Amino acid sequence: MEPKASIRGLPVYKPGKPLEEVRREFGLSEVIKLASNENPFGCSPKVWPALGKIKEQFHIYPEGLAPDLREKLAHHLETDPERIIFGNGSDEIIQMIGRAYLELGSESVMADLTFPRYETATRIEGAKPVKVPLKDGVHDLQAMLGAITDQTRIVWICNPNNPTGTIVSYEELSRFLDQVPDHVLVVVDEAYYEYVTDSEYPNTLSLLDYNPQIIVLRTFSKIYGLAAFRVGYGVAHPDVVRELNRVREPFNVSRLAQQAAIAALDDEPFILYCRNQNRLGIKQITEQLDEWNLHYYPPSGNFILLDTTMPADDVYQELLQQGIIVRSGAALGFPSYIRVTVGNEEQNKRFLYAFRKLLEMKGKISANA
Amino acid sequence: MEPKASIRGLPVYKPGKPLEEVRREFGLSEVIKLASNENPFGCSPKVWPALGKIKEQFHIYPEGLAPDLREKLAHHLETDPERIIFGNGSDEIIQMIGRAYLELGSESVMADLTFPRYETATRIEGAKPVKVPLKDGVHDLQAMLGAITDQTRIVWICNPNNPTGTIVSYEELSRFLDQVPDHVLVVVDEAYYEYVTDSEYPNTLSLLDYNPQIIVLRTFSKIYGLAAFRVGYGVAHPDVVRELNRVREPFNVSRLAQQAAIAALDDEPFILYCRNQNRLGIKQITEQLDEWNLHYYPPSGNFILLDTTMPADDVYQELLQQGIIVRSGAALGFPSYIRVTVGNEEQNKRFLYAFRKLLEMKGKISANA
Repeated sequence: MEPKASIRGLPVYKPGKPLEEVRREFGLSEVIKLASNENPFGCSPKVWPALGKIKEQFHIYPEGLAPDLREKLAHHLETDPERIIFGNGSDEIIQMIGRAYLELGSESVMADLTFPRYETATRIEGAKPVKVPLKDGVHDLQAMLGAITDQTRIVWICNPNNPTGTIVSYEELSRFLDQVPDHVLVVVDEAYYEYVTDSEYPNTLSLLDYNPQIIVLRTFSKIYGLAAFRVGYGVAHPDVVRELNRVREPFNVSRLAQQAAIAALDDEPFILYCRNQNRLGIKQITEQLDEWNLHYYPPSGNFILLDTTMPADDVYQELLQQGIIVRSGAALGFPSYIRVTVGNEEQNKRFLYAFRKLLEMKGKISANA
Repeated sequence: MEPKASIRGLPVYKPGKPLEEVRREFGLSEVIKLASNENPFGCSPKVWPALGKIKEQFHIYPEGLAPDLREKLAHHLETDPERIIFGNGSDEIIQMIGRAYLELGSESVMADLTFPRYETATRIEGAKPVKVPLKDGVHDLQAMLGAITDQTRIVWICNPNNPTGTIVSYEELSRFLDQVPDHVLVVVDEAYYEYVTDSEYPNTLSLLDYNPQIIVLRTFSKIYGLAAFRVGYGVAHPDVVRELNRVREPFNVSRLAQQAAIAALDDEPFILYCRNQNRLGIKQITEQLDEWNLHYYPPSGNFILLDTTMPADDVYQELLQQGIIVRSGAALGFPSYIRVTVGNEEQNKRFLYAFRKLLEMKGKISANA
């Protein structure tokens, strides 16, 4: 009863600490979670009533190919329905890509550091992760190109990158795509796409028309505020979608998730509101960080990776005791940084207040700064 | 951009035809689906109000290890919480078992014919499915034992078996477990467990104490009526659970599914009601089949595999046009059989009426039989 060699000792993903857990552990009633890049404004108010419409169908399996959601999303994205595949979160699409394209002896190229699931998806298949250091927190696409071998099957580009929040530009991505060999699938993970306001951010979907080797990943877990439901999607050439469907679980996206996503797509004003509030929140936090002279990477998503100039795990623990959950950079490869989700105005204020107290206590800033 | 060799040409799972699809295709308003072994009585009325309690948490990721549901289920099953792993349906646990224990060169043993996902989970990993014919529709455990080699990692036992509905007894299973070599994981898929009334049906969970190589699969998709949500579970030795957690997606079971399952566990009377109605439904259908002299396998779940004595695909199509969706046995390896889910009394009546008309039309029974 030995598991296969490639998973022996594989670490289990450590997610942002759940609210419930912190409440239990510290006996706190008010806890703010700024650890998992969730939408502080919740989801569209259209979602709950939409669920009521299917409450007589809870015993019925979902439609595996999600035809109604697919149709609606294709219209929204101005693309073909056959180009879309849905997952139990975009996490599951990462897994499907690994299952379909990687095996013992193959390689996948990713940034060092980036979203850890690319590496896990690679290792589980017995394939080799090849890591290319970030340059100033940004994907170094030219170096990643240089890391491609005959064994490379996938290049993962997280854009904006998690945890740095930085983007690669249209120009950088186009140049990369012009040079990447035909045998490589290029995964562009755009989980934070709807938050980005930078004009240099690529419209990757439009590049797909000329580059059938791209798959774009998006999710309903971030700006759409449906993380509880688990639904994400990939957009790719129909040939790629067909291969992924071979390894897709038949009923991988729940009926409730499909229904919720349809309702969420109907509320564009909510998305615009969240995007604007997020920009205001970034301003609110970064102006304060600038004042304290703390480094952070230019944030394009709904989170900020910032240098506390202290051991990150200590900062994490101190904030936790104040009822504020952030993500320690220690496990993410940035030992003095924390990753903070941009909350609503009040949450950001509370985070800044607690963090200021900590900086003062440690003598990093003076008490009347 | 070639997918890995093991998935080339792999067929995509063909689920029971969804209601929505049949309505669309045939322009029918009233359609009965007896194709996917769903609960005709829906789910507990406690589920919907329970969802209302978490409607402010739709933007928050689920807790990956489902602590509240785990606690509740462990109590319900009288087992340890560390023995339980949850999946996005028990389908996903089948996949996780394959991912953790199978690789190129390994083998898994299964009945011929049984639930097709065991074979898919095996093939995707590049492992070899070894199929052992059923004996009178029942798993031939002694022959399966004989099929085990040094390369065998898993034996899959579907109990009750899908699609035949037959069971292996406590005695047969115990004898098998006494003899099975230590290097083999024995998966006992009990998706229909709560429907079984046969006194010879094993209490597999109690066998787990002495046989750490068992994993029992159960689901909330069948008698609990939560197929739309996607939640199933495995019960196994903590060492096995730990290995499976390495390949589990961090947020694989949605917050709504966890909440719904907790509420469903609180309504034991609903489960008892469904079990009783199912026995009555089986009686209602099989008495009629006996009268028509049609063979069926002894049904222990909530479905009946019956011999139409006609090409199954034709029968399937004829019934479809009457707004009744069943499962053709053609794709399941029983070319003259159909698999019919036991519905409520009215649905069973409508099925029997339509089927009688068809038998009469084809001269299988006389019009006044």
